[in-house]
Amino acid sequence: MRIALLIEYDGTPYAGWQWQPNGRSIQQCLEEAIEQITGRFHRVHGAGRTDAGVHALGQVAHFDTESSIPPQKWRHALNPHLPDSIRIRQSAAVEDTFHARFSACGKHYRYVYYVAPVASAMLGRHAWHVERAMDTDLMRQAAESFCGTHDYAAFCSSGSDVKDTVRTVKSVMIEAHGPWITLDVEGEGFLYNMVRILAGTLMEVGIGKRPTDCIAKALQTGQRDEAGVTAPAHGLHMMAVFYADDPFFGQ
Amino acid sequence: MRIALLIEYDGTPYAGWQWQPNGRSIQQCLEEAIEQITGRFHRVHGAGRTDAGVHALGQVAHFDTESSIPPQKWRHALNPHLPDSIRIRQSAAVEDTFHARFSACGKHYRYVYYVAPVASAMLGRHAWHVERAMDTDLMRQAAESFCGTHDYAAFCSSGSDVKDTVRTVKSVMIEAHGPWITLDVEGEGFLYNMVRILAGTLMEVGIGKRPTDCIAKALQTGQRDEAGVTAPAHGLHMMAVFYADDPFFGQ
Repeated sequence: MRIALLIEYDGTPYAGWQWQPNGRSIQQCLEEAIEQITGRFHRVHGAGRTDAGVHALGQVAHFDTESSIPPQKWRHALNPHLPDSIRIRQSAAVEDTFHARFSACGKHYRYVYYVAPVASAMLGRHAWHVERAMDTDLMRQAAESFCGTHDYAAFCSSGSDVKDTVRTVKSVMIEAHGPWITLDVEGEGFLYNMVRILAGTLMEVGIGKRPTDCIAKALQTGQRDEAGVTAPAHGLHMMAVFYADDPFFGQ
Repeated sequence: MRIALLIEYDGTPYAGWQWQPNGRSIQQCLEEAIEQITGRFHRVHGAGRTDAGVHALGQVAHFDTESSIPPQKWRHALNPHLPDSIRIRQSAAVEDTFHARFSACGKHYRYVYYVAPVASAMLGRHAWHVERAMDTDLMRQAAESFCGTHDYAAFCSSGSDVKDTVRTVKSVMIEAHGPWITLDVEGEGFLYNMVRILAGTLMEVGIGKRPTDCIAKALQTGQRDEAGVTAPAHGLHMMAVFYADDPFFGQ
């Protein structure tokens, strides 16, 4: 039987989603918890391989098992075997054709900035501390051209070996709540570090270091140096993964 | 010269405000940081001696120094010598008659509940996880009688040796934001664990375990067992300390 999991994690103490030679990964913690319960190793496939330090409120993963544990009980079975910083929010049975990564038709990421003279002691691990004031109107103007279907080559880390850099971004929203600024991005798919490069570019626009047309230009030229810095991992949150048929619908 | 500090901290890794035989305290971290800068020990006096695990957004403390560091620069001087989970938000010169604790005329505490079937992986250290639904209307009804000047003996931990248990509470506010419920309490002064016992009692009212008149009865009888459990420390946040003359006004 194939089981889908809806997972929340604080990425701070982990080497990222995927198994790493140095440091524990989220995938490893899940596979070890499943092995503790069933006595057998089961590969867990995630919708997105989040980097070290990246958080998730709505990561989705799947695995196959012959266990007789009812699908919705996997949540209760797994949580006691996981660290407090990883929680299974939902579990459900899915068709054998469901794949957490390949069946996904879209994702929602949130990048969080904390704009204040002094960093946050309480939530510094969950937001990028920016000391200089950011103009959200300028950021919104610049972000407009990011939506649509474009070649996002300028917003892809140079280490990536992806050939097709065309993607479709459905919406970009920027909101301010006191010292917190959130950048919400929804799209059909993302290149490696695409949201973090967008977040870094928008920060530079917000503090007046880059003009508002820089994103349009970067998309046009495809040159990485037309975009801004890669914002740090710890401000990024994977909020949701979308499927044509939501595995957790109605729960 | 007397310096006042406005301090934010994540209480998770600390043994509380005050020096403890086991584990590091916030006070200790501050005194060590000051000693690293000035080469001399200076006692730091806090407005409230928060327990292990309790957080602060607006703790206030003072210390005396002969250092020539300008008062408002103490913030920048201290932060690099402190762990990331303690940040000085403001620093200012105050009169020699100012005392962080004895000059305070009021405090604002916030208690945070997280009401959901599964605990929060991201913010579990900052809120009390309650699995059962809480009725905020019932909580508000019960909380009404908490305001005013009363003998709060029923809301004081038995370990306390305070004789006068009369205090004045100015306001109690309960708000829900998705799975988060916040309880904001402002008062002139509080007994030991008073806000945590109120938070525990209101949780029991919210899940239907105690009637809404239980707080009025507990105040009337002064019996600790008429009130509910002491809510855990990690949901409590010291938000602000009030002074007739705000040391940080205008900064």
